[in-house]
Amino acid sequence: MTSVLFDEIGVLYTGDPEAEELAGAAVVIDGGTVAWVGPASAAPEADERVDVEGGCVLPGFVDSHAHLVFAGDRTGEFAARMSGRPYTPKGIHSTVEATRAAADSELAARTAALVAEMLAQGTTTVEIKSGYGLTVEDERRSLAVASAFTEETTFLGAHVVPRGVAPDDYVRLVAGPMLDACAPHAKWIDVFCERGAFDGEQTRHILSAGMRAGLAARVHAGQLGEGPGVAIACELGAASADHCTHLSDADVEALASSGVVATLLPGAEFSTRSPYPDARRLIDAGVEVALATDCNPGSSFTSSMPFCIALAVREMGMTPLEAVRAATYGGARALRRTDVGVVRPGARADLVLLDAPSYVHLAYRPGVPLVRQVWREGRRVV
Amino acid sequence: MTSVLFDEIGVLYTGDPEAEELAGAAVVIDGGTVAWVGPASAAPEADERVDVEGGCVLPGFVDSHAHLVFAGDRTGEFAARMSGRPYTPKGIHSTVEATRAAADSELAARTAALVAEMLAQGTTTVEIKSGYGLTVEDERRSLAVASAFTEETTFLGAHVVPRGVAPDDYVRLVAGPMLDACAPHAKWIDVFCERGAFDGEQTRHILSAGMRAGLAARVHAGQLGEGPGVAIACELGAASADHCTHLSDADVEALASSGVVATLLPGAEFSTRSPYPDARRLIDAGVEVALATDCNPGSSFTSSMPFCIALAVREMGMTPLEAVRAATYGGARALRRTDVGVVRPGARADLVLLDAPSYVHLAYRPGVPLVRQVWREGRRVV
Ligand SMILES: [Zn+2]
Ligand SMILES: [Zn+2]
Repeated sequence: MTSVLFDEIGVLYTGDPEAEELAGAAVVIDGGTVAWVGPASAAPEADERVDVEGGCVLPGFVDSHAHLVFAGDRTGEFAARMSGRPYTPKGIHSTVEATRAAADSELAARTAALVAEMLAQGTTTVEIKSGYGLTVEDERRSLAVASAFTEETTFLGAHVVPRGVAPDDYVRLVAGPMLDACAPHAKWIDVFCERGAFDGEQTRHILSAGMRAGLAARVHAGQLGEGPGVAIACELGAASADHCTHLSDADVEALASSGVVATLLPGAEFSTRSPYPDARRLIDAGVEVALATDCNPGSSFTSSMPFCIALAVREMGMTPLEAVRAATYGGARALRRTDVGVVRPGARADLVLLDAPSYVHLAYRPGVPLVRQVWREGRRVV
Repeated sequence: MTSVLFDEIGVLYTGDPEAEELAGAAVVIDGGTVAWVGPASAAPEADERVDVEGGCVLPGFVDSHAHLVFAGDRTGEFAARMSGRPYTPKGIHSTVEATRAAADSELAARTAALVAEMLAQGTTTVEIKSGYGLTVEDERRSLAVASAFTEETTFLGAHVVPRGVAPDDYVRLVAGPMLDACAPHAKWIDVFCERGAFDGEQTRHILSAGMRAGLAARVHAGQLGEGPGVAIACELGAASADHCTHLSDADVEALASSGVVATLLPGAEFSTRSPYPDARRLIDAGVEVALATDCNPGSSFTSSMPFCIALAVREMGMTPLEAVRAATYGGARALRRTDVGVVRPGARADLVLLDAPSYVHLAYRPGVPLVRQVWREGRRVV
């Protein structure tokens, strides 16, 4: 095992609430793990030394919400939406058709390209959902593909009711044979709880079945309007309620008292020209907030955590510190991980080095590719 | 001279109004110039061949408004503004002090870093303004630094009245000895016409003096409120009125009938949490629109034309096609250039190759670094 000293750091953002932001600090990693964090003057010896040249160091981003296993092309749909022209709202169903028709190898190649793109932008942990197969076999193989890239795999058979299937039949399928086939490949179960997708009763039924099968719960809730999703997430002890754009006061209180993370996905609001979630309201109420990309071809085709940070600061009332915390520590909380999203002895050696002295620049210099180096499990990968 | 064939292009966006968007096209460059554009099946032979692998090709971006010659650090001011905390509004004056104190070599190194960052994001032509010196000598040397990076240099002594100088005295200085010292290093003259900066009479006086000295005019107008800047730009035949966030109906009509380009700078609205300009209103009235970054440390520290394109589509009512046109052809119009911002025989061989099949992805995939290769004057530079 090789140890590496990261020296001449500008600001070190640790993601560790005990010592969140350090000046004049150094970091030593040993193999795949962080071994030491402290003042540069007291740094222990190491086999190698990386001169960070005054750049900011922070934990690799934790993107806790992404839909990366799909095929097809919805560029035209986006361009039509942005041009105000009428278009066929085939939407998600066109992605489902293309995904079903795609070979495993194509799905894997597309997923690999997106994961590599994320890595180049500093994301070292990503959650990947199924949800474009919507048959037992297509959901199963979507998760098998995802498993090759992350341990954070999420069974989202309940993304939408596929065409030609009765809703009640589909809920039975998802909570029965589809769950049985998918559970071995998944850590999480998720439901899109929204008018037009799955209602409260269906959501509770599917999540409960998943939990009995050993999966932990997370929920798409409150994207397009207030609904029962957040309350169900809190009631069932989900790790996270995602979107949280439309919340009642009771929802906010439930999130705060239950400790369920509110995962905000501003890329979706950006790409659908919708109002943004109010992160300030959540933070002021004591809710733990995460930021994620929601990377998907329909409503948020960004893979960029820095972009989400910039949006969170511009549009959602977050300070730069709160936004970078939500993109690292918050994402880890949303995945119930303590080994990522933080630079602390014992944590995974996932580090991002910026071409800027401070994490503030992720918001101050929007759109600029500031990620200079990425280390994952102790190895330089970008 | 070496000729190069760009083959297997996805969408070719030419920026040429005669044939703006082509499928199945190829491009041949010869030395520093575009030699041929047409159907791939009819492409002539060339010394080298670049397989674009289905990626989009477009002209290098033309960023017609940037303030790159400065020193100092305003990260804290940004963070304070975004955190809602009170802060000392030293603003631009702190940059002026730091710029005056910096050696030419430091100013050149900082400018070089920003120009390189822009190039990596596809910007092959950039306008660079002075305006942080505000003494005869500091404005002169700012322009001398800028001249090493671009022929599009702009004398902006009338950026703000420096501390400790009476406004009338400063206007006399700018239009007199400062202009005399700066004109040999500049192509353009610019004035920040805004309440708190320079009023209509001062603006007209300074621009007219610059034009008598052989410079062409451009104006900062309508950023914070309606004012006389746009009318003066149209009356004097300026190339461009920049910002155009607050416009009267008469302003819009004057822009349309005079042919003065409206250069929109959404990075400034993003970073100051201000309302965006209404590009739709301008385009529908027949105004030529350009997009630029306004890259500067105070109000818009982005260097990313793709980011500005994404904002223009999300926030300003532009279609993806209109936004990419404004970032290429429009920028060239704002600089009165016909040799850049376009892929057409005889134009400069400035090409951007995207990791995406279409320019639509610049808006569809916000924040994602999609620029794969950049060629400038026939040489690959990224
Ligand atoms: Zn989602
Ligand atoms: Zn400006």
